[in-house]
Amino acid sequence: MAGFIKRISKTAGHIPGEMIYVGEKKEGAVSVSLIDYDDKALSEKEISDVEELFPLKETPTVSWININGLRDTRLIEKLGGHFGIHSLTLEDIVNTAQRPKYEDFDSYIFVVLKMLMLDASGKGIVSEQVSLVLGANFVISFQEKKGDVFDAIRERIRQNKGRIRRAGPDYLAYSLLDAVVDNYFSILENTGEQIEEMEEKLLANPSPQTLRKIHDLKRGIIFLRKSVWPLREVAGSLERGESKLIKKSTVIFLRDLYDHTIQVIDTVETLRDMLSGTLDIYLSSVSNRMNEIMKVLTIFAAIFIPLTFLAGIYGMNFEFIPELKWRWGYFYALGLMAAVGFGLLIFFRRKKWL
Amino acid sequence: MAGFIKRISKTAGHIPGEMIYVGEKKEGAVSVSLIDYDDKALSEKEISDVEELFPLKETPTVSWININGLRDTRLIEKLGGHFGIHSLTLEDIVNTAQRPKYEDFDSYIFVVLKMLMLDASGKGIVSEQVSLVLGANFVISFQEKKGDVFDAIRERIRQNKGRIRRAGPDYLAYSLLDAVVDNYFSILENTGEQIEEMEEKLLANPSPQTLRKIHDLKRGIIFLRKSVWPLREVAGSLERGESKLIKKSTVIFLRDLYDHTIQVIDTVETLRDMLSGTLDIYLSSVSNRMNEIMKVLTIFAAIFIPLTFLAGIYGMNFEFIPELKWRWGYFYALGLMAAVGFGLLIFFRRKKWL
Amino acid sequence: MAGFIKRISKTAGHIPGEMIYVGEKKEGAVSVSLIDYDDKALSEKEISDVEELFPLKETPTVSWININGLRDTRLIEKLGGHFGIHSLTLEDIVNTAQRPKYEDFDSYIFVVLKMLMLDASGKGIVSEQVSLVLGANFVISFQEKKGDVFDAIRERIRQNKGRIRRAGPDYLAYSLLDAVVDNYFSILENTGEQIEEMEEKLLANPSPQTLRKIHDLKRGIIFLRKSVWPLREVAGSLERGESKLIKKSTVIFLRDLYDHTIQVIDTVETLRDMLSGTLDIYLSSVSNRMNEIMKVLTIFAAIFIPLTFLAGIYGMNFEFIPELKWRWGYFYALGLMAAVGFGLLIFFRRKKWL
Amino acid sequence: MAGFIKRISKTAGHIPGEMIYVGEKKEGAVSVSLIDYDDKALSEKEISDVEELFPLKETPTVSWININGLRDTRLIEKLGGHFGIHSLTLEDIVNTAQRPKYEDFDSYIFVVLKMLMLDASGKGIVSEQVSLVLGANFVISFQEKKGDVFDAIRERIRQNKGRIRRAGPDYLAYSLLDAVVDNYFSILENTGEQIEEMEEKLLANPSPQTLRKIHDLKRGIIFLRKSVWPLREVAGSLERGESKLIKKSTVIFLRDLYDHTIQVIDTVETLRDMLSGTLDIYLSSVSNRMNEIMKVLTIFAAIFIPLTFLAGIYGMNFEFIPELKWRWGYFYALGLMAAVGFGLLIFFRRKKWL
Amino acid sequence: MAGFIKRISKTAGHIPGEMIYVGEKKEGAVSVSLIDYDDKALSEKEISDVEELFPLKETPTVSWININGLRDTRLIEKLGGHFGIHSLTLEDIVNTAQRPKYEDFDSYIFVVLKMLMLDASGKGIVSEQVSLVLGANFVISFQEKKGDVFDAIRERIRQNKGRIRRAGPDYLAYSLLDAVVDNYFSILENTGEQIEEMEEKLLANPSPQTLRKIHDLKRGIIFLRKSVWPLREVAGSLERGESKLIKKSTVIFLRDLYDHTIQVIDTVETLRDMLSGTLDIYLSSVSNRMNEIMKVLTIFAAIFIPLTFLAGIYGMNFEFIPELKWRWGYFYALGLMAAVGFGLLIFFRRKKWL
Repeated sequence: MAGFIKRISKTAGHIPGEMIYVGEKKEGAVSVSLIDYDDKALSEKEISDVEELFPLKETPTVSWININGLRDTRLIEKLGGHFGIHSLTLEDIVNTAQRPKYEDFDSYIFVVLKMLMLDASGKGIVSEQVSLVLGANFVISFQEKKGDVFDAIRERIRQNKGRIRRAGPDYLAYSLLDAVVDNYFSILENTGEQIEEMEEKLLANPSPQTLRKIHDLKRGIIFLRKSVWPLREVAGSLERGESKLIKKSTVIFLRDLYDHTIQVIDTVETLRDMLSGTLDIYLSSVSNRMNEIMKVLTIFAAIFIPLTFLAGIYGMNFEFIPELKWRWGYFYALGLMAAVGFGLLIFFRRKKWL
Repeated sequence: MAGFIKRISKTAGHIPGEMIYVGEKKEGAVSVSLIDYDDKALSEKEISDVEELFPLKETPTVSWININGLRDTRLIEKLGGHFGIHSLTLEDIVNTAQRPKYEDFDSYIFVVLKMLMLDASGKGIVSEQVSLVLGANFVISFQEKKGDVFDAIRERIRQNKGRIRRAGPDYLAYSLLDAVVDNYFSILENTGEQIEEMEEKLLANPSPQTLRKIHDLKRGIIFLRKSVWPLREVAGSLERGESKLIKKSTVIFLRDLYDHTIQVIDTVETLRDMLSGTLDIYLSSVSNRMNEIMKVLTIFAAIFIPLTFLAGIYGMNFEFIPELKWRWGYFYALGLMAAVGFGLLIFFRRKKWL
Repeated sequence: MAGFIKRISKTAGHIPGEMIYVGEKKEGAVSVSLIDYDDKALSEKEISDVEELFPLKETPTVSWININGLRDTRLIEKLGGHFGIHSLTLEDIVNTAQRPKYEDFDSYIFVVLKMLMLDASGKGIVSEQVSLVLGANFVISFQEKKGDVFDAIRERIRQNKGRIRRAGPDYLAYSLLDAVVDNYFSILENTGEQIEEMEEKLLANPSPQTLRKIHDLKRGIIFLRKSVWPLREVAGSLERGESKLIKKSTVIFLRDLYDHTIQVIDTVETLRDMLSGTLDIYLSSVSNRMNEIMKVLTIFAAIFIPLTFLAGIYGMNFEFIPELKWRWGYFYALGLMAAVGFGLLIFFRRKKWL
Repeated sequence: MAGFIKRISKTAGHIPGEMIYVGEKKEGAVSVSLIDYDDKALSEKEISDVEELFPLKETPTVSWININGLRDTRLIEKLGGHFGIHSLTLEDIVNTAQRPKYEDFDSYIFVVLKMLMLDASGKGIVSEQVSLVLGANFVISFQEKKGDVFDAIRERIRQNKGRIRRAGPDYLAYSLLDAVVDNYFSILENTGEQIEEMEEKLLANPSPQTLRKIHDLKRGIIFLRKSVWPLREVAGSLERGESKLIKKSTVIFLRDLYDHTIQVIDTVETLRDMLSGTLDIYLSSVSNRMNEIMKVLTIFAAIFIPLTFLAGIYGMNFEFIPELKWRWGYFYALGLMAAVGFGLLIFFRRKKWL
Repeated sequence: MAGFIKRISKTAGHIPGEMIYVGEKKEGAVSVSLIDYDDKALSEKEISDVEELFPLKETPTVSWININGLRDTRLIEKLGGHFGIHSLTLEDIVNTAQRPKYEDFDSYIFVVLKMLMLDASGKGIVSEQVSLVLGANFVISFQEKKGDVFDAIRERIRQNKGRIRRAGPDYLAYSLLDAVVDNYFSILENTGEQIEEMEEKLLANPSPQTLRKIHDLKRGIIFLRKSVWPLREVAGSLERGESKLIKKSTVIFLRDLYDHTIQVIDTVETLRDMLSGTLDIYLSSVSNRMNEIMKVLTIFAAIFIPLTFLAGIYGMNFEFIPELKWRWGYFYALGLMAAVGFGLLIFFRRKKWL
């Protein structure tokens, strides 16, 4: 979290519209790829000079420009300049500490989302910013790193599956957003499984590690909520379809996207409800165990105390203690102790304290 | 829950509109039944070939097509194709991990609900998705498994009870939805009884099993809320009656349906409030019992400690301890101990610690 | 609660509009009384045959028909049929598990309220359903049992006090609703007093009975909220005065009614806030007392343990222990013990542990 | 609180519009004072016969009639009758258990507020109802008791400070409301100081008295919120300035009043947040102290137990125990005990248990 | 906090529009600086006599008047009088206990914000009020003390960087607000780091100091929320751009400002969520440690109690105890004790109590 806030505060004090790259400096090279298609033709290539892309602004085909890596702010600025993207949009693209948002600039629609992924350990969640610019006949997508979440869509375009080749750039944008949102479900599934697994342990064998795990999961859920709640607004804005860039026929799909985001939010809230109960269970489970121990030990002590007292009595040095002279006095004393001990045991049992 | 999320995530990455069956593979055969009626005539049959149904789209009679089992996506696609159902709707029908929802596609209304049932143990709750498509002169209902919740309505149609035969498909759709919602009350009744039963045990004899039970009930309530809250929106959309498929005279019944769903939500919230207090009661009940035990045992120990000390004193080996030489010294010592013991007992009683 | 839900679920599966009486079967006979008045004349009688009432629908006088007992659904159906009451309304009248609600059927307004009363013990709260049908020149009121809450209004009509005889049926309906809502305040007063009484006990002498009492009061408040919150909507709908059955001059009184319901809700919320703190107080009060006990006893033990140790030392059988030979060795030992004991006492006092 | 609810329930069952005085019977005499002014002239007098006021309704000057004491309902009714005040308003004026509210009766505006004051002890809060009726050229204010909160305004009128003499009755009403709201801040300041003072004690020396104090403050805050929240609505209604009785130039001041009430609410919420944390702190502070004690005592016991055991060993009566014959056996035993004791002390220290 | 409320209550009882300076009396001198610019020319100077500024109201250039220190209410009144600022606005400027707010007075827009800064210790947060008055061709900014938050903007104007010299006063006002809001992020970063640092300590080594720290951070967050939430309204009002003082081209930047405030609020809420969990962790961490200690010590005692009992048995003075006569009786007894002790140790280990 602190890392996250740190990234935001890096841009504080700069001129509005200035592009400040806040990510790690060591990230790999920036790559730009293009898929240009209509229902008949398709061309696909890697771009080395951004000026190759400029003519596409005028062609009637759908052009999907995908940019991996945001380090090269010069390149992005040049591209943005030609495609008429506002400097504040460019600033938001490279400043990866944005909340998910939707902005309609008339000549284009700008959408920021968070892509969620499991980290290397497979337990934690890391996020990456994905931005989309949807214009009249192009879609530009920006990713922090090369990822594979859009591969299925590339394949669909290449093989002309579904309606994607026949539909316009708005449908392409929808497909990209849908891919991102769909991806959340696997994260949610993973988190849900971690919670259930932990609950099993909780009731069986609570340990301080479990406490730490609850804490980590809570953090994860806070993070998830933060990424997921603004989606509602984004998807809602898209679904309302007020921009002329979005065709009537695509709205129905955006409604479906909206439904999915509601489902994602719903599931996050459910996971949160599930988790919020576990700390209570942990605490009562721990105190149950501890009480169990204390109880048995206390009873243990309570039985021996009277016995020790009896031994103390016959250890007194009075000149005249009749029992001490008895032939079987010792055994009588042992018997008495056994009787008292068993009596107490039975008493405690009866009271259900044992 | 994890199972639920798993079902959702199965469909991630697919083409929008693609039908992905997410249920268990082993479910029984798919069966299609038809009831076709108006206020004079009635015909009822099991359908083997879905094409038999195609002419019904044009006839003025009300046609109720009920499909049990969603495995056969081919069949559903064929049916949907003929009756003009959008591919996204078909996708939602077979993807049984939907939230309850209402969608108006102009030529038809699509409603998804959750049917709730007790599981085999009679304690847990399982859910099944029920989808309805209401067209100009037909209603198509989809169930995951053959159930008996609609039997009462079939009977009402056969015996021409109430207004069902005189009214149109919108009234039939209302009747089906009403049957599903009414069914919730028995689930709520069962849950309410489990909570009350558990509370009785709670105050009498709290055990770790009770804790587990509270936890399970909490889960059940989370699940119930998740199924029930979206109903408000569904019933509200229906009640507003903006679709031309819903007649004025039916709106008043849909208002009644809306009232019922509010009552269901209300009851779920009340159950939740009731349950939320029980963990507190459990914890204070457990700690009351534990404190009771600890208190008695501690007092037990506290009484014997001074007595043992006295025995220790007369066990010292000083050459000159006057009491040791006394004729009745031993009995004097025993008497002293008894006096101290009783004195402490009375003292503790007075302090109300016992 | 379970009883309440049981009543709802009794009606599940029935034809909409079918009248299902869900109350106890043993309730007394159904009685129907009529007060018919205008500003000049007044006639009052008990009705044995419901057909006597039919002509009243046409007369210009205000007719107040009051029905005690809902067992005789035939009678209510007959009456409803003549006065043009929808079958869903009739169903709601006899099904006493309704939420408070307001429904405008153009030709009449239908209002359901809950009347709250103290039970026989004077501690618990029981509720009874009161329904009102306000028509163009009549008011029909339905009660589950004969009650006295409307007596003051009857008296006002008979003695021509206030504006009631000059005003129309809408003012009569307002008066009846006002009587029901006013009645809530005595319930709230009683509950408030129980909470305050319990709090006094809480700080003085917490016991498991107090816990039970808190629990019962919490239940009562949940029940109260459930009955009271929907009132806001009911009173709000009335106050907006959109129906032509409600005269302009009555709206100002309905606004007053709305204020009262807000005050009722406000008070319930305040009681709830007050109660929600008491469990914390109970728990800390209990643990304070318990800690007090444990502390004293532990200190008790802690003082005697070193003394017993000293006795143990001089009980050792070493051949050469110089003190044992001393003339006043025994008294020296007793003195040593006394010194240690007092020293510890003073030490604990200083530390404020005692 | 119970006292408060009692006052409300006193009026239950009465005819709407009937004036029921619910305050204490013993309150002092009712006094009526008048200030009549415009920008040039000013007359001020105590009124003994209410009929003296009747001509004022017609004069163009601003007439401020202030009534202290509400016992004399006859007087208020007479005044209200002449000035055209609705009977429901008169009922609300004398029934001092109202929520703060705003009502627009076209010919006048009616506002009810709560004046808050510290009680005699300077710790608790008591409230008094203040009602205002703003007409075309008069303001009538009603107070339960003679107070000094309006003195500053009287002085301002007399000395013609600020715009008050030049402005109309709406500005006078604003000034009176502003005086009441401003007065809240001193209450809030006092409460804030009590909370901070208590927190200091909390961390230093938690006692059951602190618990009681927290409880009392919580009550106070509940009471404050109840009085303060409805203000938002009142001030909001005034600020919207929909009544023709409020001049455009006054609206800007009412907006300022609205800001003040928001600030009051904000501060109450902040105080509540601050307080809500203190119980947690109290509890953990208490349990910290208690644990501290228990820990030290337990360690105390744990050190002596092994020593007593050693003494027990050398107190055994075996014929052959070599150590007993040693010349320095006794001292060896004492040394052994000292070694064990110190060893344990060091061990506990190392473990940071001491 | 109490200090804050004290500042508010200082102004209670004063005439509306009267300027009451509530800050500390000792603050340094008041200084007024002016930057007057358009896209071609720039003049910058310190002002000693406020009348020098009066001609600026008419010139077409953008005039930014910055006032440090609010003690000299006479000066501010004079300035405000000439620039047509309402007396209520002037009152709000010097009364530094305002909530952030936006007010549109047609001829100017008035905005109040809180500037947040770390205090001398670098841990606590202090706030300062910043007010802005945006007129047709001037911006007047008021600060409590000389600060450096606006230096970057001054530099930008001097060096003609970005669009600031070409844009109007609305863009300048935006830049100033943006500088204030951007500044929050460093506060949030600091707080976030403190929370994370504390959490590390929490799990490793909980101490009463940690409790105090949690408490302090909680206070800080309450304070932050209070300052930050009203910003949403302020930025929202600005973004809606209803005033004719705000140009269309600036609205897009104000939307960006709005996004930033949402991000600030979001982050504050996240910090709060993070913090709210820590008290639970603290408490369970403390009780874990305490239980650990108590457990070990209790087991310690439980092992020695039976051994002491055994020693007691062989310390009894019966004439005939066979073991006492045995040659190796003593060693047998020691062995027996060792066996029992180890047996118990193993038993406890097995039970996982150790």
